[in-house]
Amino acid sequence: MALLETSKYPQGSVLGSVNPDLASERQTASFSVEKLTALLDGGTEQTRIRRAVVEAIESDPVFSRENQYFQTQNERYESAVRKAVHLQKKMHEMGWTENGPEYKALAGDVAFLLHRVFMRSISVLGSDKQIAKWIPLATQHKLIGSYAQTELGHGKVAGKTAFLYDTRLQPKFPWEFDSKLSATHTVVFAQLYVHGKCYGIHPFIVQIRSLQDHSLCPGVTAGDIGPKMNFEHIDNGYLLLKNVHIPRENMLSKFCEVRPDGTYVRQGSQKINYFTMTTVRISLISDEVLTPLMKACTIAIRYSVVRRQSKLKPGEQEAKILDYQTQQEKLLPQLAAAYAFHFINDYLQELLNRGYIEIQKKNFDMLPELHALSSGFKAVITQHCTAGVEICLRACGGHGYSLLSGLPSLYTKILASCIYEGENTILLLQAARFLIKCFMAASAGQPVPPSVTYLAAVKHGKCPAKNKLDFLSPDIYTEAYQHVAVRLTSSTAEKLQDLIQSGVNKHDAWNQCTVQLVQAAKAHCHYIAVKNFAETVEKLETKAGIQKIMKHLCDLFALHGIFSNTGAFLHDGYTSPAQMDMVTASYLDLLAVIRKDAVPLVDAFDFTDKTLNSALGSYDGQVYQRLYQWAQKSPTNQMSPAYETYLKPLLHNTLSKL
Amino acid sequence: MALLETSKYPQGSVLGSVNPDLASERQTASFSVEKLTALLDGGTEQTRIRRAVVEAIESDPVFSRENQYFQTQNERYESAVRKAVHLQKKMHEMGWTENGPEYKALAGDVAFLLHRVFMRSISVLGSDKQIAKWIPLATQHKLIGSYAQTELGHGKVAGKTAFLYDTRLQPKFPWEFDSKLSATHTVVFAQLYVHGKCYGIHPFIVQIRSLQDHSLCPGVTAGDIGPKMNFEHIDNGYLLLKNVHIPRENMLSKFCEVRPDGTYVRQGSQKINYFTMTTVRISLISDEVLTPLMKACTIAIRYSVVRRQSKLKPGEQEAKILDYQTQQEKLLPQLAAAYAFHFINDYLQELLNRGYIEIQKKNFDMLPELHALSSGFKAVITQHCTAGVEICLRACGGHGYSLLSGLPSLYTKILASCIYEGENTILLLQAARFLIKCFMAASAGQPVPPSVTYLAAVKHGKCPAKNKLDFLSPDIYTEAYQHVAVRLTSSTAEKLQDLIQSGVNKHDAWNQCTVQLVQAAKAHCHYIAVKNFAETVEKLETKAGIQKIMKHLCDLFALHGIFSNTGAFLHDGYTSPAQMDMVTASYLDLLAVIRKDAVPLVDAFDFTDKTLNSALGSYDGQVYQRLYQWAQKSPTNQMSPAYETYLKPLLHNTLSKL
Repeated sequence: MALLETSKYPQGSVLGSVNPDLASERQTASFSVEKLTALLDGGTEQTRIRRAVVEAIESDPVFSRENQYFQTQNERYESAVRKAVHLQKKMHEMGWTENGPEYKALAGDVAFLLHRVFMRSISVLGSDKQIAKWIPLATQHKLIGSYAQTELGHGKVAGKTAFLYDTRLQPKFPWEFDSKLSATHTVVFAQLYVHGKCYGIHPFIVQIRSLQDHSLCPGVTAGDIGPKMNFEHIDNGYLLLKNVHIPRENMLSKFCEVRPDGTYVRQGSQKINYFTMTTVRISLISDEVLTPLMKACTIAIRYSVVRRQSKLKPGEQEAKILDYQTQQEKLLPQLAAAYAFHFINDYLQELLNRGYIEIQKKNFDMLPELHALSSGFKAVITQHCTAGVEICLRACGGHGYSLLSGLPSLYTKILASCIYEGENTILLLQAARFLIKCFMAASAGQPVPPSVTYLAAVKHGKCPAKNKLDFLSPDIYTEAYQHVAVRLTSSTAEKLQDLIQSGVNKHDAWNQCTVQLVQAAKAHCHYIAVKNFAETVEKLETKAGIQKIMKHLCDLFALHGIFSNTGAFLHDGYTSPAQMDMVTASYLDLLAVIRKDAVPLVDAFDFTDKTLNSALGSYDGQVYQRLYQWAQKSPTNQMSPAYETYLKPLLHNTLSKL
Repeated sequence: MALLETSKYPQGSVLGSVNPDLASERQTASFSVEKLTALLDGGTEQTRIRRAVVEAIESDPVFSRENQYFQTQNERYESAVRKAVHLQKKMHEMGWTENGPEYKALAGDVAFLLHRVFMRSISVLGSDKQIAKWIPLATQHKLIGSYAQTELGHGKVAGKTAFLYDTRLQPKFPWEFDSKLSATHTVVFAQLYVHGKCYGIHPFIVQIRSLQDHSLCPGVTAGDIGPKMNFEHIDNGYLLLKNVHIPRENMLSKFCEVRPDGTYVRQGSQKINYFTMTTVRISLISDEVLTPLMKACTIAIRYSVVRRQSKLKPGEQEAKILDYQTQQEKLLPQLAAAYAFHFINDYLQELLNRGYIEIQKKNFDMLPELHALSSGFKAVITQHCTAGVEICLRACGGHGYSLLSGLPSLYTKILASCIYEGENTILLLQAARFLIKCFMAASAGQPVPPSVTYLAAVKHGKCPAKNKLDFLSPDIYTEAYQHVAVRLTSSTAEKLQDLIQSGVNKHDAWNQCTVQLVQAAKAHCHYIAVKNFAETVEKLETKAGIQKIMKHLCDLFALHGIFSNTGAFLHDGYTSPAQMDMVTASYLDLLAVIRKDAVPLVDAFDFTDKTLNSALGSYDGQVYQRLYQWAQKSPTNQMSPAYETYLKPLLHNTLSKL
C-alpha cells in the first residue's frame, strides 16, 4: 500500500510493535500499573476473571466490532441480535454468571438489553407465582421481553394511558419502548382503572407478538422511532395498544393486586418503586458512563504522546502535544474525574447494598437519602463524563472527528445518558428538594441522614491556607467544598422562605429558585465526591506508589473544581483572592506532575486494542497506519459513484489536458 | 395511520395549521418580527431577495433534503454532487451572483464547496496571467478544483512535503484534502526547494485526475479518510503525489515566482497569507456557526412551548416547559448569544472591509489586529455556539436525541468548526500573543491598535452599582468586562515576566502561562462582544419595540456572562459579593422578561419549515405527528431482518401462546 510505504516507519517493523514515543512513557511510571488495575477491579482475582472473559469474547469472531463504523442501521441491528443470541450460548458454554464483565467487554453492542430489564421488573415487582411462571421462560429465551414506561412526547407516565379492569387497555397516547422488532412481550406501565376509579400507575405484562410467526398481535401497533445519534443497534420503537385484553394475572402484583371481584388490595410500601429507579441509576454509572470516559481518556492521552506538533523551543524536535500546558489542562482533569467517579461509584454501590438489606427488613428509612444521592450523582456524573468525552474528542482535533478514532461513537452514546433514566435537571431538583428539607430539619435541630449532617454545622470561618502547598491538604480543600455546599443550600433556602413570606405562592417560589437549587445540588455532590476521594486515598496501601499517585489525582480533581468555579469559593470571602492565586499555582503545578504518569494511568484501565475499537488509541499507538488501513473500507473509497451521471456531462467539453 | 388517529388533534385540521400553543406565543410579541428580520438581513430589500432565493430552492425537488436522515454516505455524496451541478444551472437561469443566500439556504449540503476555495486561492495568490487562464475554466466547470493544505497527522504544512524545482514533487507525507472523488485539480501547499535550497511553503496547481475518463493521474494516490461525525456528503480524502511533475508555471505567483533559470523572486508582502486566513475565518462565522445556533434555538424554543410536562401548581393544566426557570436558563442565553454574535459578525465584516481597502493601498498596518480579532472570535464564537447547540439538543430530551429533530446534525456539524480553519486553542493563543504585545507597548506609552487601547487605561476602581437595576446599565457591565480583560492580561503578562526574570527560558515560560493566556484572550473577546452589542443597541431606532427587546437581550448576554464566570469579576474585589447577588437577581428577572418574546425572537430568524428540516421545530409546531410520519421511513421499520436467522431458532420451542 503506497501510503504505508511513505510513512515514517517501514511497515513490517511497526504493526504489532509499540510506538517508541509511547514505550518511553511507560518506562518512567512512578507506580505499579498492574496493582492499580487490580485496585480498580476490586482485586487480582477479579482482574483475572475479567481478562479471561474479555479474551474469550475478543477471540470470538462473532463478537467482532471491526466493521462497526461502516455499517447501516439494519446491519447494526442484525449484528446486535446475532451477538445477543451467541452470547447466551457462550455464557452457557463458559459457565458465566449474569452481571459479569461480558456486557462491558461487548460495549453494550448487543440486542435484548431490555430483556434483562423485563426480567428485573418481574423479579422486583412480581408476585412469587408470577416470578415462578415468567422468569424461567425468559431465562430460556422462550420469549423476548421488553419495557414500555415512557409515553411518547412526555417522558413519563402522566395519566394519558389507561388500563381498565375488566374491559380493555385503552391508551390515549403511544409508549416509547425498546426491542420493537425483537420483543414478544413487554412490561407496560399504565394507569389502573377499576370500575371507573383510578388507582395510579401499575406494571402489566403484555404479549405483543405471535410466538408462531412473530407477527404483531391483534390491536398492537409498533413502529420505529427513527434514526438517533447513536444506538443504531437498538430497535427503539413506539407501541400502541388498542383494545388489547390483558389477563388480570398479568398485572405485576408483589405490592398490589386486583381480586377477581374487582377489589384493589395494596400490600407493602409504594416506596419500593423508588428503590428500583435508584438501582437502575446507580448501575448505569459504571458501564454506561465511566467506561466511556475511561476509554476516551485512554485514546486521547495515548494519541497526545504519539502526535507531535510544533516546537516548544526553536531548534528542538517537534513536541509531543501532551507537553503543552493547554493540552494537559484539557485531558488530565478528565483523567482525575474518571478516578474520582470510580470511587464514588464504589461508595454508592456500598450504600445501595446497605439500603437493600434494610429494605428486606421492611425498613425504608434509607430510601430518601439513597434516592437523593443516586439522582444527584446520576446527573452530575453523566454531565461531567459527557463533557469529558467531548473534551477528549476535541483535543484530538480532526482525528478525533473521524469515527475511526472511536471518540465520536463514545460521545454520541454517553450523551444519551444525560437524558435517559431521569433527565438531569429534574434529578438535580429532586436532590435539591431533599437537601432543602434536610437543611430545614437540621436547622431545627432534628436528626438528618449521614450524608447531610454537615448542613447543620454552618461555619463562618475563613480558609486557613497560607501558601500554595496548603492547597494540597485534603482537609483544606474538602472544608472549602463543604463550605460552598452549605452556603448555596442555606442561601437558596433563605430565598425560598423570603419569597413565600412576601406572599408568592410556594410553587411559583420554588420555580423562581430552581436555577440556584440546581447549583446547590451540584455543589453537594461535588463535595461528597471530593471527600470520598480523599478518604479513599487515605485508606490505600502506601506501597507500590499507588497511594502517592492517587493523592495527586485527588488533589487535581479538587483543585480543578475550584479553579473552574472560583466565584463559588470567593463569594462570601471564605477563600481570598490571594488564596485563589495559590489554588491556580498548585493546580498548574499538578498538571506537570501528573503528565509524567499520564500514560501509565490510562494503561491501568486495562483496555485492549479491540475493546477500544479506535485507530488512535490502540495499544501500540500506530495511529496513522491504522487510520489508513481502516479508511480503505469506506464505501466511497472508489471511483466517484456520481461520475457517469453528473461529473462526466459537466466536464464533457474539457477534453485536453490543461 | 393508526397513530395519527389517536393523537390529540384530528388529522385533517392540524397538519399545515399552527399549533394553538405556538400561535398564542405570537399574539403577544412586544415588537415587529418583520422589522427585526429586516434588521438582521441588513434591510427589507435583502429580506426580499433572500426569501425569493429560498423559495426558488425549496420549491425545486432536486434540492430536497427530506430523506437526508435516512441516507448512506454514498447517497449523501451523490445527492450533494447532484445539487451542486443543479445549482450551477439554477444560478445561471435565475441570474444569481456568487456569495448570495443560496448556499445558506442549501445548508452547505452541496458538493464542490472546495471548488470555490480553489478559485479564491487562485484569485488571491495567482498572477494576472494565471487568473486569466484558470478562473474562466473553473467558472465554466471545465475542471473541478480542490484544496490540499493540511498534512495528515499534522494539521499544517510542517516541512515534510517538498516541491523540488526542476525535478519532481517528492512528498514524505500525504495531504488531507477534499473532493477526492470529484476534483480534477487541486491547489497543494508544499515546501519549495530550488537547487537544494528551501524557500518555504508555496501554493501549486496540480492536476490529479484525467479529464478524459476521470481516472487518477500517474503518481497520484487518493483515498477516503473514512467516516466522520458529519459531512458524509463531502468526500474528504488523502492525496499522495509521488514523482508528479508540476510545470513551473503552476506555482501561484502573485507574490513570488521561480524564473526559468531557477532564480527565486519575491514581490510584495508575505503577510497577505494572513489576510486570506483572516477572510476565511470571518466568512465561516455567519453561515457555518451562527446559522446552526439560530436554527437550534428556533427548534428548541418552539418545541418548549408546544411540549407540556408536569404542573407548576396542583390542579393547573400541565405547564409549557419554557415556563420552567431552568428551561429558560438553558435556552434564552443561547438566543441572546445568537444576537450578540450576529452583531459582532457585522463588526468584523466592517473591519475586514476597511482592512482590505488599506491592503489594496499596500498598507498592512491593520493586519495584526485583524488577525488577532479574527482568530480570537473564530475560537470564542465556534466554542460558544457549539456549546449552545448542544444545550438546545439536551433541552429537548429524548426528542432532541432523535435525528429527526434536526438537532444532532446541527451539533455534529458545528462541532467541526472548533477544529477546522485553526484549532481553537491555537487561535486563542495567537490572539493572546497580540494582547500581551499590545499591553507591553501600551504600558510603555507606545500607540496600539484601536481595539486594545483600553489596555493602557488600567483602572483600580470598584464597580459603582448600588442595586440590581444598576446592572441593566450597559456602562456598568461593559466597564466590568473591560476591567476583567485588563486584569487577566496584565496579571498574565506579569507572571510571564516574573518567570523569565527568574531564569526560565522564554519558551518554557510562555508554555507555563498558556492556560491563563487563553483566559485573557477569551475575556478580551467577551468584552468586545458586550461593548459592541451595547453600542449597536444604542444606535437602533426606537420604534416598533426593536430597541427595547434588543436592550433586554444585550443585558441578558452580559449578565449571563457574569453569572457564569463570577470568579473573574469577584477576584480583585472590583465587584463585591453583594453586587454579585444583584447580578444574579437581575439575570433571573431578565429570563422571565425575555421568555415572553422568545418565540417572536426566533421567528425573526425567518427559517422556513424546509430550511429547519426538523420534526420538532417546524413552523407549525406539530411535533408528534411529524415525528411519526418521518419515523415511518426508517429502514428497520418492518418485520425484523433478524427473524429467520436468529429469532426463530431461538424461539422455536415456544409454540403456544403464553
